[in-house]
Amino acid sequence: MSDGGESPTASGGDRTTVEDRPTPAERRSPEGWPVELRGVTESLVTTLGPNDLWNVAALGLHPPETPSDADSGNSAAESVGSVASADSPVTARTWGNTRTRRNFHRQGGGYVQFVRDPVDFVDATLSIFEVERPVLDSADAWVEVEADQVDSGVSGATRWEEWELTPRDGAVERETVPTVNRGFNAVVEATVAASRLGVEAYDQTELQNRLAYFEDVGRTCGDDRVRAAFDRLRDHLSE
Amino acid sequence: MSDGGESPTASGGDRTTVEDRPTPAERRSPEGWPVELRGVTESLVTTLGPNDLWNVAALGLHPPETPSDADSGNSAAESVGSVASADSPVTARTWGNTRTRRNFHRQGGGYVQFVRDPVDFVDATLSIFEVERPVLDSADAWVEVEADQVDSGVSGATRWEEWELTPRDGAVERETVPTVNRGFNAVVEATVAASRLGVEAYDQTELQNRLAYFEDVGRTCGDDRVRAAFDRLRDHLSE
Repeated sequence: MSDGGESPTASGGDRTTVEDRPTPAERRSPEGWPVELRGVTESLVTTLGPNDLWNVAALGLHPPETPSDADSGNSAAESVGSVASADSPVTARTWGNTRTRRNFHRQGGGYVQFVRDPVDFVDATLSIFEVERPVLDSADAWVEVEADQVDSGVSGATRWEEWELTPRDGAVERETVPTVNRGFNAVVEATVAASRLGVEAYDQTELQNRLAYFEDVGRTCGDDRVRAAFDRLRDHLSE
Repeated sequence: MSDGGESPTASGGDRTTVEDRPTPAERRSPEGWPVELRGVTESLVTTLGPNDLWNVAALGLHPPETPSDADSGNSAAESVGSVASADSPVTARTWGNTRTRRNFHRQGGGYVQFVRDPVDFVDATLSIFEVERPVLDSADAWVEVEADQVDSGVSGATRWEEWELTPRDGAVERETVPTVNRGFNAVVEATVAASRLGVEAYDQTELQNRLAYFEDVGRTCGDDRVRAAFDRLRDHLSE
Protein backbone atom coordinates (compact mmCIF):
# COMPACT_ATOMS: atom_id res chain seq x y z
CA MET A 1 0.00 0.00 0.00
CA SER A 2 2.96 2.33 -0.45
CA ASP A 3 3.30 4.82 -3.25
CA GLY A 4 7.03 5.24 -2.74
CA GLY A 5 6.46 8.12 -0.33
CA GLU A 6 4.99 10.35 -3.02
CA SER A 7 1.79 12.26 -2.52
CA PRO A 8 -1.13 10.42 -4.09
CA THR A 9 -2.28 13.64 -5.71
CA ALA A 10 1.08 14.96 -6.88
CA SER A 11 0.88 16.27 -10.42
CA GLY A 12 2.69 15.14 -13.54
CA GLY A 13 2.57 12.03 -15.70
CA ASP A 14 -0.67 10.93 -14.12
CA ARG A 15 -2.33 9.13 -17.00
CA THR A 16 -1.29 6.45 -19.35
CA THR A 17 -4.42 6.03 -21.43
CA VAL A 18 -6.37 9.29 -21.24
CA GLU A 19 -5.50 12.91 -21.88
CA ASP A 20 -7.10 16.18 -22.71
CA ARG A 21 -9.69 16.36 -19.93
CA PRO A 22 -11.16 19.63 -18.75
CA THR A 23 -10.23 20.20 -15.15
CA PRO A 24 -13.04 21.38 -12.89
CA ALA A 25 -11.48 24.82 -12.72
CA GLU A 26 -12.10 25.25 -16.44
CA ARG A 27 -15.81 24.69 -16.02
CA ARG A 28 -18.01 27.73 -15.68
CA SER A 29 -21.41 28.45 -14.25
CA PRO A 30 -23.63 30.70 -16.33
CA GLU A 31 -23.90 34.18 -14.85
CA GLY A 32 -26.12 34.25 -11.78
CA TRP A 33 -26.41 30.47 -11.57
CA PRO A 34 -24.95 28.73 -8.51
CA VAL A 35 -24.12 25.52 -10.39
CA GLU A 36 -22.39 24.31 -13.51
CA LEU A 37 -24.90 23.48 -16.21
CA ARG A 38 -23.60 20.82 -18.58
CA GLY A 39 -25.89 19.06 -21.02
CA VAL A 40 -29.49 19.08 -19.81
CA THR A 41 -29.70 19.53 -16.03
CA GLU A 42 -32.84 18.18 -14.38
CA SER A 43 -34.17 20.69 -11.87
CA LEU A 44 -37.39 21.20 -9.98
CA VAL A 45 -39.21 24.50 -10.36
CA THR A 46 -41.82 26.07 -8.12
CA THR A 47 -44.32 28.53 -9.56
CA LEU A 48 -47.02 30.41 -7.70
CA GLY A 49 -50.51 29.28 -8.64
CA PRO A 50 -53.86 31.09 -8.41
CA ASN A 51 -54.54 29.13 -5.19
CA ASP A 52 -51.53 30.90 -3.60
CA LEU A 53 -49.61 27.63 -3.34
CA TRP A 54 -46.32 26.92 -5.06
CA ASN A 55 -46.58 24.17 -7.64
CA VAL A 56 -43.52 21.89 -7.86
CA ALA A 57 -42.64 20.43 -11.27
CA ALA A 58 -39.63 19.05 -13.11
CA LEU A 59 -37.81 21.36 -15.51
CA GLY A 60 -34.88 20.45 -17.77
CA LEU A 61 -32.37 23.30 -18.01
CA HIS A 62 -30.46 23.79 -21.26
CA PRO A 63 -27.20 25.68 -20.93
CA PRO A 64 -26.49 28.68 -23.13
CA GLU A 65 -25.24 27.95 -26.62
CA THR A 66 -21.50 27.96 -26.99
CA PRO A 67 -19.73 29.14 -30.13
CA SER A 68 -18.68 25.61 -31.04
CA ASP A 69 -22.29 24.43 -30.79
CA ALA A 70 -23.59 27.32 -32.89
CA ASP A 71 -20.94 26.59 -35.51
CA SER A 72 -22.12 23.04 -35.90
CA GLY A 73 -25.32 24.11 -37.62
CA ASN A 74 -27.15 21.34 -35.77
CA SER A 75 -30.07 22.81 -33.87
CA ALA A 76 -30.44 19.81 -31.56
CA ALA A 77 -26.77 20.02 -30.63
CA GLU A 78 -27.13 23.76 -30.09
CA SER A 79 -29.81 23.45 -27.48
CA VAL A 80 -28.16 20.67 -25.50
CA GLY A 81 -24.64 21.94 -26.11
CA SER A 82 -21.63 21.59 -23.89
CA VAL A 83 -20.28 23.79 -21.13
CA ALA A 84 -22.46 26.78 -20.37
CA SER A 85 -21.09 30.17 -21.33
CA ALA A 86 -21.74 33.33 -19.41
CA ASP A 87 -23.15 35.52 -22.15
CA SER A 88 -26.41 33.92 -23.31
CA PRO A 89 -29.40 32.73 -21.31
CA VAL A 90 -30.30 29.36 -19.89
CA THR A 91 -33.45 27.99 -21.52
CA ALA A 92 -36.13 25.43 -20.66
CA ARG A 93 -39.21 24.04 -22.34
CA THR A 94 -42.67 23.45 -20.94
CA TRP A 95 -44.59 20.65 -22.63
CA GLY A 96 -48.36 21.01 -22.91
CA ASN A 97 -50.61 23.27 -20.89
CA THR A 98 -49.00 22.58 -17.53
CA ARG A 99 -49.28 24.53 -14.31
CA THR A 100 -45.68 25.64 -14.79
CA ARG A 101 -46.54 27.09 -18.22
CA ARG A 102 -49.60 28.89 -16.93
CA ASN A 103 -47.85 30.20 -13.81
CA PHE A 104 -44.84 31.38 -15.85
CA HIS A 105 -47.23 33.38 -18.01
CA ARG A 106 -49.13 34.73 -15.03
CA GLN A 107 -46.26 35.44 -12.64
CA GLY A 108 -43.32 35.93 -15.00
CA GLY A 109 -41.07 33.41 -13.30
CA GLY A 110 -40.49 31.04 -10.42
CA TYR A 111 -37.82 29.31 -8.34
CA VAL A 112 -35.51 26.79 -9.97
CA GLN A 113 -33.92 24.43 -7.47
CA PHE A 114 -31.39 21.63 -7.36
CA VAL A 115 -32.70 18.68 -5.41
CA ARG A 116 -31.46 15.18 -4.65
CA ASP A 117 -34.51 13.76 -2.91
CA PRO A 118 -35.99 10.98 -5.06
CA VAL A 119 -39.47 11.29 -3.54
CA ASP A 120 -39.59 14.97 -4.48
CA PHE A 121 -38.71 14.02 -8.06
CA VAL A 122 -41.52 11.50 -8.21
CA ASP A 123 -44.10 13.80 -6.63
CA ALA A 124 -43.11 16.71 -8.86
CA THR A 125 -43.28 14.63 -12.02
CA LEU A 126 -46.28 12.37 -11.48
CA SER A 127 -48.63 14.24 -9.16
CA ILE A 128 -49.89 17.69 -8.27
CA PHE A 129 -47.34 18.66 -5.66
CA GLU A 130 -47.96 22.01 -3.99
CA VAL A 131 -46.15 23.67 -1.10
CA GLU A 132 -46.59 26.84 0.89
CA ARG A 133 -43.10 28.24 0.39
CA PRO A 134 -41.19 28.42 -2.88
CA VAL A 135 -37.96 26.69 -1.84
CA LEU A 136 -38.06 23.02 -0.85
CA ASP A 137 -36.23 21.86 2.27
CA SER A 138 -34.41 19.39 0.06
CA ALA A 139 -32.95 22.05 -2.26
CA ASP A 140 -29.14 22.20 -2.19
CA ALA A 141 -29.33 25.46 -4.15
CA TRP A 142 -32.06 27.63 -5.64
CA VAL A 143 -32.40 30.45 -8.14
CA GLU A 144 -35.31 32.85 -8.47
CA VAL A 145 -35.71 33.30 -12.22
CA GLU A 146 -37.58 35.58 -14.57
CA ALA A 147 -39.08 33.45 -17.34
CA ASP A 148 -39.63 34.97 -20.79
CA GLN A 149 -41.30 32.97 -23.51
CA VAL A 150 -39.12 33.11 -26.62
CA ASP A 151 -40.38 30.30 -28.84
CA SER A 152 -43.09 27.70 -29.23
CA GLY A 153 -43.89 24.76 -31.44
CA VAL A 154 -45.55 21.39 -31.70
CA SER A 155 -43.80 18.06 -31.27
CA GLY A 156 -45.95 14.99 -31.85
CA ALA A 157 -49.32 16.18 -30.57
CA THR A 158 -47.82 18.30 -27.79
CA ARG A 159 -47.42 22.04 -27.93
CA TRP A 160 -44.22 23.25 -26.27
CA GLU A 161 -43.05 26.70 -25.24
CA GLU A 162 -39.46 27.71 -24.79
CA TRP A 163 -38.46 30.05 -21.99
CA GLU A 164 -35.37 32.09 -21.29
CA LEU A 165 -34.55 32.00 -17.59
CA THR A 166 -32.82 35.01 -16.08
CA PRO A 167 -31.59 34.74 -12.46
CA ARG A 168 -32.82 37.43 -10.07
CA ASP A 169 -31.75 35.98 -6.74
CA GLY A 170 -30.41 32.71 -5.42
CA ALA A 171 -28.41 30.87 -2.80
CA VAL A 172 -26.38 27.76 -2.23
CA GLU A 173 -27.80 26.01 0.84
CA ARG A 174 -25.14 23.29 1.00
CA GLU A 175 -22.31 21.80 -1.01
CA THR A 176 -21.13 18.22 -0.83
CA VAL A 177 -19.08 15.58 -2.62
CA PRO A 178 -21.41 14.27 -5.32
CA THR A 179 -21.80 10.51 -5.37
CA VAL A 180 -23.25 8.12 -7.93
CA ASN A 181 -26.21 6.00 -6.88
CA ARG A 182 -27.83 3.90 -9.59
CA GLY A 183 -30.96 3.69 -7.46
CA PHE A 184 -31.49 7.46 -7.47
CA ASN A 185 -30.71 7.59 -11.20
CA ALA A 186 -33.28 4.86 -11.77
CA VAL A 187 -35.94 7.01 -10.09
CA VAL A 188 -35.27 9.85 -12.52
CA GLU A 189 -35.45 7.53 -15.55
CA ALA A 190 -38.57 5.87 -14.16
CA THR A 191 -40.35 9.22 -13.86
CA VAL A 192 -39.55 9.91 -17.52
CA ALA A 193 -40.98 6.54 -18.59
CA ALA A 194 -44.01 6.90 -16.30
CA SER A 195 -44.83 10.38 -17.59
CA ARG A 196 -44.99 8.95 -21.13
CA LEU A 197 -47.49 6.22 -20.28
CA GLY A 198 -50.64 6.79 -22.32
CA VAL A 199 -48.84 9.05 -24.80
CA GLU A 200 -49.43 7.56 -28.26
CA ALA A 201 -45.99 8.41 -29.64
CA TYR A 202 -44.35 5.91 -27.27
CA ASP A 203 -44.38 2.11 -27.37
CA GLN A 204 -46.28 1.28 -24.18
CA THR A 205 -44.84 -2.22 -23.72
CA GLU A 206 -41.35 -0.79 -23.98
CA LEU A 207 -42.20 1.84 -21.35
CA GLN A 208 -43.54 -0.84 -18.99
CA ASN A 209 -40.40 -2.95 -19.48
CA ARG A 210 -38.24 0.06 -18.82
CA LEU A 211 -40.21 0.91 -15.67
CA ALA A 212 -39.77 -2.65 -14.42
CA TYR A 213 -36.03 -2.53 -15.09
CA PHE A 214 -35.57 0.77 -13.28
CA GLU A 215 -37.69 -0.33 -10.35
CA ASP A 216 -35.49 -3.42 -10.03
CA VAL A 217 -32.32 -1.29 -10.12
CA GLY A 218 -33.82 1.16 -7.64
CA ARG A 219 -34.86 -1.46 -5.13
CA THR A 220 -31.48 -3.22 -5.40
CA CYS A 221 -29.12 -0.22 -5.43
CA GLY A 222 -31.20 2.46 -3.74
CA ASP A 223 -31.59 3.45 -0.12
CA ASP A 224 -34.82 3.76 1.84
CA ARG A 225 -35.73 7.04 0.12
CA VAL A 226 -35.37 5.45 -3.30
CA ARG A 227 -37.59 2.56 -2.25
CA ALA A 228 -40.12 5.07 -0.90
CA ALA A 229 -39.96 6.90 -4.23
CA PHE A 230 -40.85 3.72 -6.13
CA ASP A 231 -43.68 3.00 -3.70
CA ARG A 232 -44.94 6.52 -4.36
CA LEU A 233 -44.52 6.14 -8.13
CA ARG A 234 -46.67 3.01 -8.07
CA ASP A 235 -49.26 4.85 -5.96
CA HIS A 236 -49.39 7.73 -8.45
CA LEU A 237 -49.73 5.37 -11.41
CA SER A 238 -52.67 3.56 -9.81
CA GLU A 239 -54.51 6.78 -8.88
CA MET B 1 -43.22 36.86 -8.43
CA SER B 2 -43.75 38.09 -4.90
CA ASP B 3 -43.91 35.84 -1.90
CA GLY B 4 -45.52 38.50 0.26
CA GLY B 5 -42.14 39.69 1.46
CA GLU B 6 -41.39 36.48 3.28
CA SER B 7 -38.10 34.67 2.92
CA PRO B 8 -38.40 31.83 0.45
CA THR B 9 -36.65 29.53 2.87
CA ALA B 10 -38.48 30.54 6.03
CA SER B 11 -39.46 27.52 8.05
CA GLY B 12 -42.89 26.30 9.02
CA GLY B 13 -45.79 24.75 7.16
CA ASP B 14 -43.66 24.08 4.12
CA ARG B 15 -45.36 21.05 2.65
CA THR B 16 -48.88 20.16 1.87
CA THR B 17 -48.48 16.66 0.47
CA VAL B 18 -45.29 15.22 1.90
CA GLU B 19 -43.92 14.86 5.40
CA ASP B 20 -41.45 12.86 7.36
CA ARG B 21 -38.34 13.45 5.28
CA PRO B 22 -34.86 13.11 6.71
CA THR B 23 -33.13 16.46 6.51
CA PRO B 24 -29.56 16.37 5.24
CA ALA B 25 -28.29 17.13 8.74
CA GLU B 26 -29.65 13.79 9.90
CA ARG B 27 -27.57 11.90 7.38
CA ARG B 28 -24.26 10.50 8.53
CA SER B 29 -21.05 9.46 6.84
CA PRO B 30 -19.50 6.22 8.05
CA GLU B 31 -16.44 6.82 10.22
CA GLY B 32 -13.45 7.88 8.15
CA TRP B 33 -15.46 8.29 4.94
CA PRO B 34 -15.71 11.79 3.46
CA VAL B 35 -19.14 11.18 1.93
CA GLU B 36 -22.57 9.91 2.83
CA LEU B 37 -23.06 6.36 1.63
CA ARG B 38 -26.70 5.59 0.95
CA GLY B 39 -27.70 2.47 -0.95
CA VAL B 40 -24.93 1.23 -3.23
CA THR B 41 -22.53 4.05 -4.12
CA GLU B 42 -20.61 3.60 -7.37
CA SER B 43 -16.96 4.49 -6.84
CA LEU B 44 -13.74 3.98 -8.74
CA VAL B 45 -10.88 2.19 -7.00
CA THR B 46 -7.20 2.20 -7.84
CA THR B 47 -5.02 -0.72 -6.81
CA LEU B 48 -1.29 -1.10 -7.33
CA GLY B 49 -0.42 -3.83 -9.82
CA PRO B 50 2.75 -5.88 -10.27
CA ASN B 51 3.72 -3.51 -13.11
CA ASP B 52 3.85 -0.65 -10.58
CA LEU B 53 0.90 1.08 -12.22
CA TRP B 54 -2.40 1.79 -10.50
CA ASN B 55 -5.29 -0.08 -12.04
CA VAL B 56 -8.58 1.86 -12.12
CA ALA B 57 -11.81 -0.13 -11.78
CA ALA B 58 -15.41 0.41 -10.71
CA LEU B 59 -16.38 -0.66 -7.19
CA GLY B 60 -19.87 -0.57 -5.67
CA LEU B 61 -19.74 0.45 -2.00
CA HIS B 62 -22.31 -1.02 0.39
CA PRO B 63 -22.92 0.99 3.53
CA PRO B 64 -22.70 -0.67 6.93
CA GLU B 65 -25.75 -2.57 8.04
CA THR B 66 -28.15 -0.59 10.15
CA PRO B 67 -30.15 -2.13 12.99
CA SER B 68 -33.41 -1.84 11.04
CA ASP B 69 -31.86 -3.69 8.11
CA ALA B 70 -30.44 -6.41 10.30
CA ASP B 71 -33.81 -6.83 11.97
CA SER B 72 -35.50 -7.47 8.64
CA GLY B 73 -33.88 -10.88 8.31
CA ASN B 74 -33.50 -10.23 4.58
CA SER B 75 -29.87 -10.68 3.64
CA ALA B 76 -30.21 -8.79 0.35
CA ALA B 77 -31.74 -5.84 2.14
CA GLU B 78 -29.02 -6.01 4.76
CA SER B 79 -26.18 -5.54 2.34
CA VAL B 80 -27.77 -2.69 0.41
CA GLY B 81 -29.40 -1.15 3.47
CA SER B 82 -30.19 2.46 4.11
CA VAL B 83 -28.19 5.21 5.75
CA ALA B 84 -24.71 4.14 6.75
CA SER B 85 -24.02 3.87 10.45
CA ALA B 86 -20.70 4.66 12.03
CA ASP B 87 -20.00 1.41 13.82
CA SER B 88 -19.67 -1.30 11.17
CA PRO B 89 -17.57 -1.43 8.02
CA VAL B 90 -18.32 -0.48 4.46
CA THR B 91 -18.15 -3.51 2.17
CA ALA B 92 -17.68 -4.16 -1.54
CA ARG B 93 -17.60 -7.20 -3.79
CA THR B 94 -15.17 -8.11 -6.53
CA TRP B 95 -16.65 -10.29 -9.28
CA GLY B 96 -14.35 -12.83 -10.95
CA ASN B 97 -10.58 -12.86 -10.96
CA THR B 98 -10.14 -9.16 -11.65
CA ARG B 99 -7.07 -7.01 -11.23
CA THR B 100 -8.77 -5.34 -8.26
CA ARG B 101 -9.24 -8.72 -6.55
CA ARG B 102 -5.65 -9.77 -7.18
CA ASN B 103 -4.22 -6.40 -6.12
CA PHE B 104 -6.37 -6.33 -2.96
CA HIS B 105 -4.91 -9.72 -2.04
CA ARG B 106 -1.38 -8.66 -2.88
CA GLN B 107 -1.37 -5.11 -1.50
CA GLY B 108 -4.05 -5.26 1.17
CA GLY B 109 -5.99 -2.27 -0.10
CA GLY B 110 -6.21 0.62 -2.52
CA TYR B 111 -7.71 4.08 -3.06
CA VAL B 112 -11.47 4.48 -3.33
CA GLN B 113 -12.48 7.69 -5.08
CA PHE B 114 -15.60 9.62 -5.96
CA VAL B 115 -15.56 10.69 -9.57
CA ARG B 116 -17.99 12.44 -11.90
CA ASP B 117 -16.11 12.13 -15.18
CA PRO B 118 -18.09 9.86 -17.54
CA VAL B 119 -15.03 8.91 -19.61
CA ASP B 120 -13.24 7.69 -16.48
CA PHE B 121 -16.25 5.49 -15.69
CA VAL B 122 -16.20 3.96 -19.15
CA ASP B 123 -12.45 3.39 -19.19
CA ALA B 124 -12.47 1.90 -15.69
CA THR B 125 -15.34 -0.45 -16.49
CA LEU B 126 -14.63 -1.58 -20.03
CA SER B 127 -10.87 -1.38 -20.51
CA ILE B 128 -7.59 -1.85 -18.74
CA PHE B 129 -7.10 1.64 -17.37
CA GLU B 130 -3.83 2.21 -15.56
CA VAL B 131 -2.32 5.38 -14.15
CA GLU B 132 0.93 6.33 -12.47
CA ARG B 133 -0.56 7.89 -9.34
CA PRO B 134 -3.33 6.45 -7.19
CA VAL B 135 -5.71 9.43 -7.14
CA LEU B 136 -7.35 10.55 -10.39
CA ASP B 137 -7.44 14.25 -11.25
CA SER B 138 -11.19 13.90 -11.56
CA ALA B 139 -11.69 12.64 -7.98
CA ASP B 140 -13.79 14.97 -5.84
CA ALA B 141 -12.77 12.95 -2.78
CA TRP B 142 -10.65 9.88 -2.10
CA VAL B 143 -10.09 7.39 0.70
CA GLU B 144 -7.11 5.10 1.11
CA VAL B 145 -8.60 1.84 2.37
CA GLU B 146 -7.40 -1.39 3.86
CA ALA B 147 -9.31 -4.25 2.20
CA ASP B 148 -9.93 -7.48 4.13
CA GLN B 149 -11.60 -10.41 2.47
CA VAL B 150 -14.48 -11.56 4.67
CA ASP B 151 -16.63 -13.73 2.44
CA SER B 152 -16.83 -15.40 -0.94
CA GLY B 153 -19.32 -17.29 -3.04
CA VAL B 154 -20.52 -18.09 -6.52
CA SER B 155 -23.32 -16.32 -8.33
CA GLY B 156 -24.20 -17.75 -11.74
CA ALA B 157 -20.82 -18.92 -12.98
CA THR B 158 -18.95 -16.03 -11.34
CA ARG B 159 -17.00 -16.33 -8.13
CA TRP B 160 -17.24 -13.23 -5.95
CA GLU B 161 -15.31 -12.12 -2.90
CA GLU B 162 -16.55 -9.70 -0.30
CA TRP B 163 -14.23 -7.15 1.25
CA GLU B 164 -14.42 -4.98 4.31
CA LEU B 165 -12.97 -1.55 3.56
CA THR B 166 -11.35 0.35 6.43
CA PRO B 167 -10.31 3.97 5.79
CA ARG B 168 -6.67 4.82 6.55
CA ASP B 169 -6.39 8.25 4.98
CA GLY B 170 -8.43 10.48 2.72
CA ALA B 171 -9.31 13.96 1.56
CA VAL B 172 -12.07 15.99 0.04
CA GLU B 173 -10.65 17.75 -3.02
CA ARG B 174 -13.76 19.79 -3.78
CA GLU B 175 -17.43 20.09 -2.85
CA THR B 176 -20.18 21.36 -5.09
CA VAL B 177 -23.94 21.48 -5.53
CA PRO B 178 -24.82 18.09 -7.00
CA THR B 179 -26.89 18.26 -10.18
CA VAL B 180 -28.85 15.63 -12.07
CA ASN B 181 -27.82 14.89 -15.64
CA ARG B 182 -29.59 12.02 -17.36
CA GLY B 183 -26.73 11.82 -19.85
CA PHE B 184 -24.15 11.07 -17.16
CA ASN B 185 -26.53 8.59 -15.54
CA ALA B 186 -26.98 6.90 -18.90
CA VAL B 187 -23.21 6.37 -19.13
CA VAL B 188 -23.20 4.55 -15.80
CA GLU B 189 -26.11 2.30 -16.82
CA ALA B 190 -24.54 1.70 -20.24
CA THR B 191 -21.31 0.48 -18.63
CA VAL B 192 -23.33 -1.99 -16.55
CA ALA B 193 -25.08 -3.32 -19.67
CA ALA B 194 -21.86 -3.39 -21.69
CA SER B 195 -19.96 -5.29 -19.01
CA ARG B 196 -22.64 -8.02 -19.15
CA LEU B 197 -22.36 -8.56 -22.91
CA GLY B 198 -21.23 -12.12 -23.54
CA VAL B 199 -22.27 -13.26 -20.04
CA GLU B 200 -24.67 -16.16 -20.50
CA ALA B 201 -26.92 -15.29 -17.58
CA TYR B 202 -28.14 -12.13 -19.37
CA ASP B 203 -30.47 -11.81 -22.37
CA GLN B 204 -28.13 -10.36 -25.00
CA THR B 205 -30.85 -8.73 -27.11
CA GLU B 206 -32.18 -6.98 -24.05
CA LEU B 207 -28.68 -5.72 -23.21
CA GLN B 208 -28.25 -4.36 -26.75
CA ASN B 209 -31.64 -2.62 -26.59
CA ARG B 210 -30.73 -1.13 -23.25
CA LEU B 211 -27.38 0.07 -24.57
CA ALA B 212 -29.11 1.73 -27.52
CA TYR B 213 -31.61 3.45 -25.22
CA PHE B 214 -28.91 4.78 -22.90
CA GLU B 215 -26.76 5.94 -25.78
CA ASP B 216 -29.74 7.87 -27.13
CA VAL B 217 -30.37 9.47 -23.72
CA GLY B 218 -26.67 10.24 -23.33
CA ARG B 219 -26.29 11.89 -26.71
CA THR B 220 -29.49 13.91 -26.20
CA CYS B 221 -29.08 14.99 -22.56
CA GLY B 222 -25.33 14.76 -22.06
CA ASP B 223 -22.57 17.27 -22.58
CA ASP B 224 -19.42 16.82 -24.65
CA ARG B 225 -17.82 14.55 -22.04
CA VAL B 226 -20.83 12.24 -22.08
CA ARG B 227 -20.71 12.05 -25.86
CA ALA B 228 -16.97 11.31 -25.65
CA ALA B 229 -17.76 8.57 -23.13
CA PHE B 230 -20.18 6.90 -25.54
CA ASP B 231 -17.64 7.18 -28.37
CA ARG B 232 -15.13 5.50 -26.07
CA LEU B 233 -17.63 2.84 -25.02
CA ARG B 234 -18.23 1.91 -28.66
CA ASP B 235 -14.44 1.80 -29.23
CA HIS B 236 -13.97 -0.55 -26.27
CA LEU B 237 -16.77 -2.83 -27.44
CA SER B 238 -15.29 -3.13 -30.92
CA GLU B 239 -11.77 -3.88 -29.66
